[in-house]
Amino acid sequence: MLASMQNHPLLISSLVTFAERHHRDGEIVSRRVEGDLHRCTWRDVAARSRQVARALDAQGLQFSDRVATLAWNGYRHLELYFGVSGSGRVLHTINPKLPAEQLIWIANHAEDRVLCFDVSFLPLVQAIHSKCSTILHYVALCDDAHLPADSGLPGLVSYESWIGRQPADYEWPVFDENSASSMCYTSGTTGKPKAAVYSHRSTILHAYAVALPDGFNLSATDSVLPVVPMFHVNAWGIPYSAALTGCKLVLPGPAMDGKSIHDMIENEQVTCAAGVPTIWQMLLAHVTSGDLRFSTLNRTVIGGAACSGAMLERFHHLGVDVLHAWGMTETSPCGTLGALKRKHLALPAEERARVRLKQGRSAYGVDMRVVGSDGEEIAWDGKTFGDLQVKGHWVIQEYFKGEGGDPLDGDGWFRTGDVATIDEDGYLQITDRTKDVIKSGGEWISSIAIENIAMSHPAVHMAACIGVPHPKWDERPIIVVVKRPGMEVAAANLIGFYEDKVAKWQRPDDVIFVDAIPLGATGKMLKNKLREMLRDYVLPVSA
Amino acid sequence: MLASMQNHPLLISSLVTFAERHHRDGEIVSRRVEGDLHRCTWRDVAARSRQVARALDAQGLQFSDRVATLAWNGYRHLELYFGVSGSGRVLHTINPKLPAEQLIWIANHAEDRVLCFDVSFLPLVQAIHSKCSTILHYVALCDDAHLPADSGLPGLVSYESWIGRQPADYEWPVFDENSASSMCYTSGTTGKPKAAVYSHRSTILHAYAVALPDGFNLSATDSVLPVVPMFHVNAWGIPYSAALTGCKLVLPGPAMDGKSIHDMIENEQVTCAAGVPTIWQMLLAHVTSGDLRFSTLNRTVIGGAACSGAMLERFHHLGVDVLHAWGMTETSPCGTLGALKRKHLALPAEERARVRLKQGRSAYGVDMRVVGSDGEEIAWDGKTFGDLQVKGHWVIQEYFKGEGGDPLDGDGWFRTGDVATIDEDGYLQITDRTKDVIKSGGEWISSIAIENIAMSHPAVHMAACIGVPHPKWDERPIIVVVKRPGMEVAAANLIGFYEDKVAKWQRPDDVIFVDAIPLGATGKMLKNKLREMLRDYVLPVSA
Repeated sequence: MLASMQNHPLLISSLVTFAERHHRDGEIVSRRVEGDLHRCTWRDVAARSRQVARALDAQGLQFSDRVATLAWNGYRHLELYFGVSGSGRVLHTINPKLPAEQLIWIANHAEDRVLCFDVSFLPLVQAIHSKCSTILHYVALCDDAHLPADSGLPGLVSYESWIGRQPADYEWPVFDENSASSMCYTSGTTGKPKAAVYSHRSTILHAYAVALPDGFNLSATDSVLPVVPMFHVNAWGIPYSAALTGCKLVLPGPAMDGKSIHDMIENEQVTCAAGVPTIWQMLLAHVTSGDLRFSTLNRTVIGGAACSGAMLERFHHLGVDVLHAWGMTETSPCGTLGALKRKHLALPAEERARVRLKQGRSAYGVDMRVVGSDGEEIAWDGKTFGDLQVKGHWVIQEYFKGEGGDPLDGDGWFRTGDVATIDEDGYLQITDRTKDVIKSGGEWISSIAIENIAMSHPAVHMAACIGVPHPKWDERPIIVVVKRPGMEVAAANLIGFYEDKVAKWQRPDDVIFVDAIPLGATGKMLKNKLREMLRDYVLPVSA
Repeated sequence: MLASMQNHPLLISSLVTFAERHHRDGEIVSRRVEGDLHRCTWRDVAARSRQVARALDAQGLQFSDRVATLAWNGYRHLELYFGVSGSGRVLHTINPKLPAEQLIWIANHAEDRVLCFDVSFLPLVQAIHSKCSTILHYVALCDDAHLPADSGLPGLVSYESWIGRQPADYEWPVFDENSASSMCYTSGTTGKPKAAVYSHRSTILHAYAVALPDGFNLSATDSVLPVVPMFHVNAWGIPYSAALTGCKLVLPGPAMDGKSIHDMIENEQVTCAAGVPTIWQMLLAHVTSGDLRFSTLNRTVIGGAACSGAMLERFHHLGVDVLHAWGMTETSPCGTLGALKRKHLALPAEERARVRLKQGRSAYGVDMRVVGSDGEEIAWDGKTFGDLQVKGHWVIQEYFKGEGGDPLDGDGWFRTGDVATIDEDGYLQITDRTKDVIKSGGEWISSIAIENIAMSHPAVHMAACIGVPHPKWDERPIIVVVKRPGMEVAAANLIGFYEDKVAKWQRPDDVIFVDAIPLGATGKMLKNKLREMLRDYVLPVSA
C-alpha cells in the first residue's frame, strides 16, 4: 500500500526557493576578485539564479548540458550553483590548480557547453580555450566595466550583462530527483581523471545530514565561512546546507592568507569555518604572530587531510572546537564527522582530544565497514585495519560514462582505496591509502604513520614512505626525505629516531635524500611518481 | 541525464540498523507499566525489532497489513515502531483516550490485524474487542509473568513470548520508499475520524528536519524525553530522530505527573523534553512548590497548543529555552519550529520572548502561506491574517481511503483549517481555527484572542468564544463561561473587562454562564457542540 503523502521531488531549486521565502534577508558576504567586499541576501541570490536559468535557456542549453566554472568562492558562483542545477543543467566545477592539459582533457570529457570563470583565471582560459572543443560560450564573472578587452575568447560576455538581460520571473522546472545536478573530477593521481556525477536527491540528503548538530551544526544563528573551495567537492556541501538552514554565508574569494581569513572571521562574526589543514596552518601562524584572538569563531571543520594533535590543541586553546571530517569526491564528500558522543563528555581533555583526532563516525545516510583481504568485515576494535568501504545515499554507484571500472564490490559497497580502523564507538581512523600501505611479512605497515614520525624530526622538511620489494618480507618500507634548508641529518640517525616510536619491524630500512618530492594539484605527494623514480633502486638487504 | 549515485530507498529499517551499528550502546530508558525502570540499548532495540518482524511473518501478516498499538512511551512500543514498519507493515498507533465507540470505529476502519497493548489498557481492550472484527491477534506488552489470566481475549499472548520464540537474524526487506509505514487518525471533533498515512520517505525526511539545530537540535550528546505520547503523531517523530542521531531516549511510560517527570529529567540527565502545555503546567507546579531546579535540561519543545508568555518566562527563569512548534496529524506533525535567527540574538530579552511566543518558522521541507478568501497569498506582515496552507514532503496528499474529500487546494496546498499571520521573518502565529474565527462586518475576530482575555479574569475558570448570527454584522462574538468555584462575576463586568484590551467592535456582545464546556479526547473545547447547545440562542440586538 502506498502512503497518501505529498510527493515532491528533492530538487536543488527548492533550496534557494526556501531560502528566498524563509530567510530572505539572510546575508551572503563575498570577497570579490575585484578586491572589494560584496553583500547580498538570499532574495538576491534566488532572483539572480533565476536569471542564470533564463540566460542558459536563451543560449539553447538543453536539460543535462554541462556548465563549467573556474571560480573562487563568491556570490556569483553561488548563483550558478542554483541557477545551473535548478534549471536542470549540470554544474561542473573545475579545479583551477590542475595542469592545463588536464583541464582541457576534463572539459572535453565532460562536454562542457559554457565556461564561467573569474577574471583572475583569464590567462588560463586563454591558454586552453582553443583545445576545448565543446565549449560554445565564455562568461567572465564580472560586470562590463571589468570585462577584459581583446581577450581572444569568442563571444566573451560579462556575467552581469549575461544575466542582466533576463527577467527574474522564472518557474523552476520539476523533474526526476535522480537527475544529474553537478559533477566533480577526482584529482587523478593515477590514470585519467574520473568524475562523480551527483544527483539532486543525493545533494539534498547530504545537505540535511551535513547540517545536523553532529555535522557542521548549522542554524540560522550561524555565520559560516567555507574556506574550502566551491570547486572542491562543492565546498563540502556548505552552499546547499546554508540555503537549507538560512545561516549567513561568508565567501572568501581568492584571499586565503592568514590575515585575510582572520579579518573576515572577525568582521563577519564567523562562528564556523571549514577548510584543510594547510590553510589553517597559515591562519594559526598569523594569529600566533600577532597574538590575536577569535571573538566569535567556536568551531572549525577540518578535512581533506588529517588534523594534527598540535593543531587541534592550538585551536582548542583559542576556544575553537575542531570537527574532524573524512570524505572524498566519490562521497559528496562527507562520509564521517568527528562529533563526540555523550559517553565522551566526562572524559579528561586529552582523551576527548584522542577521539576528536580520529576522522569521526558515520552520519545517518552513509554506512561504512573495513574488510580484510577475504572481503569479510573486520571487527570494530580500533586496532585491526582493513580496506574501508562505504555505502549510502550520497556515495557513487559508478563514475561518469561508466569509465574506470566498477567501483563497488559485489554487495554494493564502494571501495574507497583507504585503509582504516573503526573503533567500538564507530569512529574511523584512516591509516593509509590501499595502494601505499606496505605489506611486510604478512603484516601491514602504515606509510603515513612512518612518514609522520620522520616529519617530526627537526631536520626534515618533507618525507614520503614507500614500500620496496624484499626477497623474504615481500615489501619493506623506506623513506624519501627532503631536508630543511641548512639542516643536516644522517640516514642512520634518522632510522635511529624511530627506536622508541614503532616496533622494530616497522622501522624504515633505508633513507633516500632528494631535493623535492613530486606533488599533485591538491598538494598530495605523488607516490606513484616516486616509485617510478626509484624503479631501479635495490634495497641493501641485510636480513 | 541521470546521476551515477547509489540509490537506496529511504526506509525506516535503515534507521534502526544505523543506530545498531553506530550507536550500539546508546541508551533507551523506559518507565514501565509494571512500575519499574528498564534500560536497554539500540543494539537490543534493533535485535528485538527483528524478532517483531519475524513474529508478524509467523502470523502470516502481509505487506501493508495494519498492526495497532494502545501503548505508552516505552521500549516495547519503540521496537514495534521499527519492527512493524521496517518489515513493511503499517503501524497504527491508537489514542487510548478516545471513547470506546470511536476506538472500535477506527480499528475496523483501519482493518487492524494485530493489537498490541499495555496491560493497563486491558479493561478497554476487553470492552471493545468483540466489536473489532478485523483483529486476529492480541498481544499484551509484558512478559508471561504479567500476562492477565482469563482475559477473555482470544489467543492473547505476552509480547515477550510472542517475540521470544523468534530468532533475531532477520533481513529487512527492501521496497518502495513511498510505501505506507504508519498511520494516525485525527481526533475528529467534526465528522468521522480521518487518517493520515505516512510513508517511509516522509518519515525519514521529517526525522532529518526535526533533528536539525533549529529543530529539536538532537545530537549523540543529548538525552531526550518525549513526554508527548508515541500514540500522538509518533511522539512528534522523536523515536525516528533519536535513531538517526543516536541520542539517549528517555521514555516516561504512563507516569506524567510533575514529580515523575522531574525525577526522570534529573535522574536521566535529560537535556531536551517535548510535550504539551498542560503537562508542563504540572511539571512547573511541582518544581515551584518544591523549589526545585533543572540541572541538565536546557530546552523544551512545546506544541499541541500555544505556550503562554508566563510559561515561557518560567522556563527561561529555570534556564530552559522554549522551542515553540506548530503542526498537526496531517503534517507528520512538525510544520514550524520557533528557533531564533541571527538578527534576534542582539534583541532585548522581552523582544526575543515575543519571537519565541510565535509558533515558529518553516524547516526546509515544508513551505507555508496564508491566503485570503480569494485564495491569493497574503503579505507576510505579521498582521494580516488568512487561512494557513502548507505543502511539503511530510504533508498529506489525501486521507486514508480517499475519504474526507480533497484536503488540497488547486495548487496542491493543504488547507490546515487554521487562521494565522506570518511575519516578515517567516514566523507563524496561529490566530484561530478557520471554523471558529468570527466574521463580523467584513472583519475577522480571533475567537482565541477573545477567550484568552476572558480566561485572564480571576473569576473565570474556562471560556469559549463563538460567533452567533447577527442581522447587520453577519456574526458577532459571545463568550460561554465557566466560573471558578465560589467566584462571581456579572456579564456586564466581564464585557467591561475588555475595554482597554481590544477594539470596541471586537468585544463580545453577550456572556452565557454554564456549568461545563464540552471537551474532546485531546482536551480541546468542542465548539461545534457548544454551537449545537446554543442553536436556539438569539442575540440581544441593540445595534
